[in-house]
Amino acid sequence: MTSLDLKTLKPMANAVRALAMDAVEQAKSGHPGMPMGMADAATVLWSRHLKFDPADPYWKDRDRFVLSAGHGSMLIYALLHLAGYADVTLDQIKNFRQLHSCTPGHPEYGHTSGVETTTGPLGQGIATAVGMALAERILNARFGDDLVDHRTWVIASDGDLQEGVSHEAISLAGHMGLNRLIVLWDDNSIQIDGSTELAEHTDVLKRFEAAGWATDAVDGHNMDEVDAALERAKASDKPVLISCKTIIGFGAPTKAGKASSHGSPLGGDELAAAKKAIGWPHAAFDVPDDIRADWKAVTARGAAAREAWQGRLDNSPRQSEFEEAFGGGLNEAAARALEAWRKELAAEKPDLASRASSGKTLEQIVPAMRELVGGSADLTGSNNTRTPDQQAIQSGKYSGQYIHYGVREHGMAACANGMALHGGVRPYIGTFLVFADYCRPAIRLSALMNQNVTYVFTHDSIGLGEDGPTHQPVEHLAALRAIPLAETFRPADALETAECWEAALSHTNCPGILALSRQTLPFLRDDDGSINKSMRGAYVLRDEPDAKAVIIATGSEVAIAVEAQEKLKARGVPVRVVSAPCLDRFMIEDGEYQAEILPDGLPRVAVEAGIRQGWDAVIGRDGGFVGMTGFGASAPAEVLYDYFGITAERVIEEVMARV
Amino acid sequence: MTSLDLKTLKPMANAVRALAMDAVEQAKSGHPGMPMGMADAATVLWSRHLKFDPADPYWKDRDRFVLSAGHGSMLIYALLHLAGYADVTLDQIKNFRQLHSCTPGHPEYGHTSGVETTTGPLGQGIATAVGMALAERILNARFGDDLVDHRTWVIASDGDLQEGVSHEAISLAGHMGLNRLIVLWDDNSIQIDGSTELAEHTDVLKRFEAAGWATDAVDGHNMDEVDAALERAKASDKPVLISCKTIIGFGAPTKAGKASSHGSPLGGDELAAAKKAIGWPHAAFDVPDDIRADWKAVTARGAAAREAWQGRLDNSPRQSEFEEAFGGGLNEAAARALEAWRKELAAEKPDLASRASSGKTLEQIVPAMRELVGGSADLTGSNNTRTPDQQAIQSGKYSGQYIHYGVREHGMAACANGMALHGGVRPYIGTFLVFADYCRPAIRLSALMNQNVTYVFTHDSIGLGEDGPTHQPVEHLAALRAIPLAETFRPADALETAECWEAALSHTNCPGILALSRQTLPFLRDDDGSINKSMRGAYVLRDEPDAKAVIIATGSEVAIAVEAQEKLKARGVPVRVVSAPCLDRFMIEDGEYQAEILPDGLPRVAVEAGIRQGWDAVIGRDGGFVGMTGFGASAPAEVLYDYFGITAERVIEEVMARV
Repeated sequence: MTSLDLKTLKPMANAVRALAMDAVEQAKSGHPGMPMGMADAATVLWSRHLKFDPADPYWKDRDRFVLSAGHGSMLIYALLHLAGYADVTLDQIKNFRQLHSCTPGHPEYGHTSGVETTTGPLGQGIATAVGMALAERILNARFGDDLVDHRTWVIASDGDLQEGVSHEAISLAGHMGLNRLIVLWDDNSIQIDGSTELAEHTDVLKRFEAAGWATDAVDGHNMDEVDAALERAKASDKPVLISCKTIIGFGAPTKAGKASSHGSPLGGDELAAAKKAIGWPHAAFDVPDDIRADWKAVTARGAAAREAWQGRLDNSPRQSEFEEAFGGGLNEAAARALEAWRKELAAEKPDLASRASSGKTLEQIVPAMRELVGGSADLTGSNNTRTPDQQAIQSGKYSGQYIHYGVREHGMAACANGMALHGGVRPYIGTFLVFADYCRPAIRLSALMNQNVTYVFTHDSIGLGEDGPTHQPVEHLAALRAIPLAETFRPADALETAECWEAALSHTNCPGILALSRQTLPFLRDDDGSINKSMRGAYVLRDEPDAKAVIIATGSEVAIAVEAQEKLKARGVPVRVVSAPCLDRFMIEDGEYQAEILPDGLPRVAVEAGIRQGWDAVIGRDGGFVGMTGFGASAPAEVLYDYFGITAERVIEEVMARV
Repeated sequence: MTSLDLKTLKPMANAVRALAMDAVEQAKSGHPGMPMGMADAATVLWSRHLKFDPADPYWKDRDRFVLSAGHGSMLIYALLHLAGYADVTLDQIKNFRQLHSCTPGHPEYGHTSGVETTTGPLGQGIATAVGMALAERILNARFGDDLVDHRTWVIASDGDLQEGVSHEAISLAGHMGLNRLIVLWDDNSIQIDGSTELAEHTDVLKRFEAAGWATDAVDGHNMDEVDAALERAKASDKPVLISCKTIIGFGAPTKAGKASSHGSPLGGDELAAAKKAIGWPHAAFDVPDDIRADWKAVTARGAAAREAWQGRLDNSPRQSEFEEAFGGGLNEAAARALEAWRKELAAEKPDLASRASSGKTLEQIVPAMRELVGGSADLTGSNNTRTPDQQAIQSGKYSGQYIHYGVREHGMAACANGMALHGGVRPYIGTFLVFADYCRPAIRLSALMNQNVTYVFTHDSIGLGEDGPTHQPVEHLAALRAIPLAETFRPADALETAECWEAALSHTNCPGILALSRQTLPFLRDDDGSINKSMRGAYVLRDEPDAKAVIIATGSEVAIAVEAQEKLKARGVPVRVVSAPCLDRFMIEDGEYQAEILPDGLPRVAVEAGIRQGWDAVIGRDGGFVGMTGFGASAPAEVLYDYFGITAERVIEEVMARV
């Protein structure tokens, strides 16, 4: 191959470096070292390989670029600005890390066109990218090369690769044979504490090879070498890791190669000397027109590709199907199927564990929503996440709708985020509720990025029985409700389970979390199922004239509330039972609705097999609460409910103490 | 080497198998497959290599045995029973998975002698074992081979090795050169969903080699091979992984080698046929006396070793120092140092970020507590976790007191659990508060196991500024307070920081979590520092005669509360300010103390730069709250406090609306 035109490319890379240095300096905060180190490799990638078109940042067949090392955010902002993404103006670069800028401290999805995912929590960028690369193959299998044919590129740091989630992600990518995933490792031998030698002696290339990846290694400042490696990577039949040996803070006379260039402005003198060293005589934020023109020129390739693609899409008989897959939310067929299913359940009144009714609900939805892709972290049979219709997705066979994620909860959740962000694939994933803790960093990102991922968390209380306290969620409902924007559902019977699935799939801009029982739940509803009563979060399930108190419960404890109500009625104490499948929704309902369900002045008692935290906002400090105060224990479920006092008798005591 | 006496060993292994099958059958729940598969290898390990003495399960120089694959709990219970651990009687085996038995569904630390750590949440067993192996080397460096000279053995499953935390753990172990850590991988090619091929194509041996481990592979049913591999492993200069190729459910005629033997009783017919297949003609729970005698005989080796060790300890000039290291809690010298430090702070009144005052507090404690071992997940300078006295611990140089954990939050926390469980080492670890989410599964285990680990979580709110919402904790204080038994502290100034450290170190049976500010906090206290006011969780910081309301705040927001109080006073509205550095403690204080601090009838307003969840229990549904309702943003800290309305003015509004 011929060598590159370095006379053009090197100044283009230096423009990235200079903008990064200037923006961090102006913000008096930020991370200059990484953009300075990776500017050369990133410039080769963006100018010669990445398929993108700033005129349409959301072009569905674009390559995805993930800056896993999100602290180096000025790298991507400089690239986006120079490539001509309209929102990333020079003013925005100057407003780096300021309120309401599109150039926040770490890249945030939805704030900046061209930012494909929020990064910063290390390890999750590369794990999210695996989901994008997998979505690409799934859609390629469905729609063919004409419509889906792109790559996912990642820049990852030493810190990314130290994180555990990177292991889950790379072993999943290797297993799935995702050869269109290419990771450039910023191999600079420096992390915050100093030399990576302080904490790391892993043979990284060997590690990736063990996971089924191809590897390569180049001098990250030698653009020819980088270009050749990227070219080789594009031809690989495996995912590819390229070690780019770089110098962090490249060019800075005293800080290059040192941790001191990582996370603070260089300072005026060092910055001036660094610009001199790289041959950049221009003022702060000044990029000469010829260099701007060179950057602008690289977008022609992507523009042409997009135009050709658009032509193919316009002429495709599957155009509307393709676009519908990217539509998001519940489609019409699925909505109809769910409505029919609700009515059927209301008529048949089956007693089912909510994990089982969730499985049966999925059997209604999956045939209607081809873009649904389910999975479980090796608990498929326990989570009831796989329907008979769903074929497993495996390396080279991407046409299925189900993923065996292995015991990789965090990687699974990050992968689901990547699929949701990619679009065209609508993920749901399963594990036990207690392992929500393992997924938690990715759930937070689902919420922060407004991604509609459904989490199917079964075995949602001490009701799972003998597995004991390591497997029994106690604090998890509270902890999940704490995450802003995420919605946690805990249905009480088969009909509510269908309703909660419908609610979770309909709300397209936030994750939905389903907490489901292992144990069988009696059917409780007596309406005809035509109205989704779970939509507003809570509703009156049983009522009595002149009710003297309200019992509020969720999930498996609603049956206990109903039992208590019946016994209280026999004792001449009429009470109302409110089922609250989604407290997150109910607590933001209008006050009128809230007061209709929970009338002022009536004493309140809540029942939930979790901790009280959060319930005081519903029942007040003087409300009664029947639930858990500490960890569970290993014993059969019925024994545990008695032992921990989550019983109708205890509910009755709490009510009687207040009426 | 000579071949083993299989005539003795095979029946000993079959006794393990039989007890596992019978106990699971009786409990009608449990996991027979793994104990049946690993019985041979485990029998070789326990009979010929593991250094233990059932007569003293807590002998400090015993080998540690960790069943990372905790679902196979009947393996360890059978071994403990047969080896003669007094509490693990046959009745307890028959009570497998029943309430109050010492044989719960998963092994639980503190419930069963010989169970070194709670396992079940996969991956954490092996990660915890790394901490034990590291503690052994640290103590060996301090006290020498005579007193500390043991190994850590692990049995790990495919699921353990898929978990991300296993990557963090094994790379740390490789980096640290922990050659006394030996992992037997139950390489049975089966996981819950079916063949491991469904989810995994990693070359596991190569993966471990890349992390700096030695590897070996044997037929796990060939006791000679296993024995030879264990012998080789003991001579390794690296940590060792041994692949034990096994058949899950070994012996079961239709379920062996299949996922169906993993997590359910075999059923009567299958069980009978399995016993026949392995040549076990005995009734349920019946182990013949000769086999019991053979098991009993293997303990002689350990008993002799313990006796010799005890003699060495008794004659050691360092006996009391050794025993004090294992004592736990704050020693006298540290307590004195802290008292002096409190008084010094009270006199000097420094304005410091609480992360900085934490660092200075550590400078007082570290010289007095040789067993304190600090560390950070690559944020040493930001977390202020390393004092000038602390040397880094590195491979072959274990005499230091500080660990550069790399960006491995979960592995770090599990490692800290392992060190605490091992004893003789008292760990504290640091990262940003937002990354508590990454540590969370291990924090839960710290609490469940009553382990006194201190978590130093800095950058505890939007006050960290420009790094933006990925780095700004919002829901984390609520989510951490939700974990049963764990204590979360959020000190308001330098003196409270010292007090909270003292509180966290004094309470020896639970983890302490310190949430510390990035930004400078004004010194607020006006007492002489002689009494630790944080001990009871909350106290009156500022008072006024005839106060009309109470403002309750934590951490960096206490200064805002004080500012509001002063402005209200100027307006003629006297209010009380309560600082609540530990809500967990205050909420379990006696009602009298609570009422003294928060008098009934006075309106309450809380200020905390987090969500309201949990505060209703303090301030009531009608209380005022100034804090966050959603994710943060990227901007300088002062801008964010204004933007999100966490200001004295907002506090004043909330108070005025209620007086």
